[in-house]
Amino acid sequence: MQIKILKGNIVHAPKFGDLSILENGYIVLEDGKIKGLFQNLPEEYKKHEIEDYTDKLILQSFCDMHLHAPQYPMLGMGMDLPLLEWLNTYTFNNEAHFADEDFARETYTKLANEMISNGTTRCCAFSSLHLKATNILMDIFEKTGMTGYVGKVNMDRNSGDVLKETTEQSKKDTITWLDETSSKYEHIKPILTPRFTPSCTNELMEFLGKLAKERNLPIQSHLSENTSEVAWVRELHPDCKQYWESYDKYGLFNDKTIMAHCVHCDQRERDAMKSRGVWVAHCPDSNVNLISGTAPVRVMMNEGIKVTLGSDIAGGDQLAMYKVICSAIKASKVKRIETNWTTDFLTVAEAYYLGTTAGAKFFGAGDGFAVGDELHAIVVDDKDFPKPVRKLSVKESFERTLYLMKTSNIVSVYSAGRKVK
Amino acid sequence: MQIKILKGNIVHAPKFGDLSILENGYIVLEDGKIKGLFQNLPEEYKKHEIEDYTDKLILQSFCDMHLHAPQYPMLGMGMDLPLLEWLNTYTFNNEAHFADEDFARETYTKLANEMISNGTTRCCAFSSLHLKATNILMDIFEKTGMTGYVGKVNMDRNSGDVLKETTEQSKKDTITWLDETSSKYEHIKPILTPRFTPSCTNELMEFLGKLAKERNLPIQSHLSENTSEVAWVRELHPDCKQYWESYDKYGLFNDKTIMAHCVHCDQRERDAMKSRGVWVAHCPDSNVNLISGTAPVRVMMNEGIKVTLGSDIAGGDQLAMYKVICSAIKASKVKRIETNWTTDFLTVAEAYYLGTTAGAKFFGAGDGFAVGDELHAIVVDDKDFPKPVRKLSVKESFERTLYLMKTSNIVSVYSAGRKVK
Repeated sequence: MQIKILKGNIVHAPKFGDLSILENGYIVLEDGKIKGLFQNLPEEYKKHEIEDYTDKLILQSFCDMHLHAPQYPMLGMGMDLPLLEWLNTYTFNNEAHFADEDFARETYTKLANEMISNGTTRCCAFSSLHLKATNILMDIFEKTGMTGYVGKVNMDRNSGDVLKETTEQSKKDTITWLDETSSKYEHIKPILTPRFTPSCTNELMEFLGKLAKERNLPIQSHLSENTSEVAWVRELHPDCKQYWESYDKYGLFNDKTIMAHCVHCDQRERDAMKSRGVWVAHCPDSNVNLISGTAPVRVMMNEGIKVTLGSDIAGGDQLAMYKVICSAIKASKVKRIETNWTTDFLTVAEAYYLGTTAGAKFFGAGDGFAVGDELHAIVVDDKDFPKPVRKLSVKESFERTLYLMKTSNIVSVYSAGRKVK
Repeated sequence: MQIKILKGNIVHAPKFGDLSILENGYIVLEDGKIKGLFQNLPEEYKKHEIEDYTDKLILQSFCDMHLHAPQYPMLGMGMDLPLLEWLNTYTFNNEAHFADEDFARETYTKLANEMISNGTTRCCAFSSLHLKATNILMDIFEKTGMTGYVGKVNMDRNSGDVLKETTEQSKKDTITWLDETSSKYEHIKPILTPRFTPSCTNELMEFLGKLAKERNLPIQSHLSENTSEVAWVRELHPDCKQYWESYDKYGLFNDKTIMAHCVHCDQRERDAMKSRGVWVAHCPDSNVNLISGTAPVRVMMNEGIKVTLGSDIAGGDQLAMYKVICSAIKASKVKRIETNWTTDFLTVAEAYYLGTTAGAKFFGAGDGFAVGDELHAIVVDDKDFPKPVRKLSVKESFERTLYLMKTSNIVSVYSAGRKVK
């Protein structure tokens, strides 16, 4: 059994809104798993070497619960275009390029390194529809130290000329992919990924629903991102009163489902999400960039819906989740303005919870740095920040760190108990 | 006469919304002043050495038209607090610390370096009320290569216990400061800075108005940032129908005046700004962080009001103006959402104009890289950005650069014709 001890200013979020802080405290790991957090190191551990991060912050690492890996090459591009033109000019052309395995390998290596460098150690990623590129992404994520889910995208209709698969091919590739990857990696697993209702025929949706049930698989997709999409789904599924029902009728809307956006979910849709235990990936940057709307995050939280955060690159322009956390705070302040100051904004502590613990729970983790969990953490050195007029409390240091940190401030990253940066 | 030639992908904004692009073109300088922009280098200049930035972007440097220099130590702090508590817990205590000249020197050196490193070469900065610290700030700005205006803050009422001056002292210090600094520096000049109406007695405002006229001085202050402030001003000046009149009646509201925020300016207030030629410093990050509201930037532009951009640190959490430019785009998209998609958002080209040319004109500069102007420019190397699926146009490179750039991507900075990074 291998003992490891980290010392530093520990700030974690076991509960929404509550920070748990240990000033220069200790995290003890046994074989990468958290044995305990201590203000004073127990006698039995004193003989072990300490990774000394005194006065540095030890924070939970981040969870990116919605990103499109093959859109990484177009990060920050086409932001002036309306959604449909953006999809046709950039998105589909970008994703089509992942038929090229060398390009996929090069791009995904850079992406994975940038995510880990920025302290994202858990994710739910959309790949493209390509079988081989999806395997490459999983392979690279595993090697880089990422954990979580990757999905081969299913899309057998309404997807332009450059990027399509037949229903038959989509089914066949999905089975091949699942057979190849379900047990191949320790930390990266497959997740079923119907792109969104307009991209999938009923036959394909039915197939995926059965597969989800048979193999007990998680599911990711998009829900109620913008009003024209919502209207489109209603046209495509006249038997469904609302968008969510187009997933629900095929068994794709349950407590293993994570839905990106949920900007325009009304009370009835939210009630369905609540009762079925569906997870939300709130993507504040994307919602603004694509002018989708302002998601009712506080309302969803109050109703007991499980909200997490996603970068949604490349609708979102920020891959670093600490930036997405700040964007979530800002989006909630915009919501407060929009609702005439009747909705509370997200505090720094609350948004930190959404970007860490809330996402980690989708993968079965406990609350904050929970005893028994493998360590997912970052260490931040803020020595190049402006010098404050007085000594800051750990909580103050933590707060400004979320706003000011850059890649270079993250000096160490731990993922599933392993030091990966 | 010294000739200097820069070669690279030149992108500048001579007009709101229009980019002027030269792919691997040339800027020729004579004694730091722009002699011309050329796609092909004229014969007469071929004997001169070229600063070769082939395939790198040569952009206009940025103008930060509203920042509080002494709030730099509290960047990113207290963002969960309501405005009044934020002011009392952080702001006034921070500014009070600038009675300490050593602290001022150290802080302002770091601030100036961070601004220049991030490509800000022109600014309108609030100092604190302290005479000596204000001189130190001007001195450091001049030495670092910054250009523009710095203001000793006037505040003789409603400013808490730790930070106050009597009316008499405020007047006396202002005269001393103006006498000492008006001709002292080549690139940094004084600007009159009544903090905002609630901070200044009528006697002080009257004094400043006279001084502005006698010495032909520029003026900076705050206008209609949030609704309770607007209501407060109405209480303090029952003779004024609107906030702007509390400046106007003392001669502090003219075409040498720049007003931060202007979030809640209605038609009548905007008409007054238009007719008097008042400039606006739009501060999108601050407006969201402090939940002030969403400024009607597109409406003001349409009406012909001169809008520029400001970081407003530390209400704003981003000092880098390329980030503020992106925040302005995002704020305009929020405005579009708020107005039910009836207001146009700011394009990347439009927001770039606001962050560069629009501000530069306050200091008398021409349109974009204008012939006869001293060069204010940055050179950006985007080699660490994600590799795109095809060769990008210069316009595409430029657009994603505004979203993705970091300090380290800025390889050179020119300010008033001098290379300062």
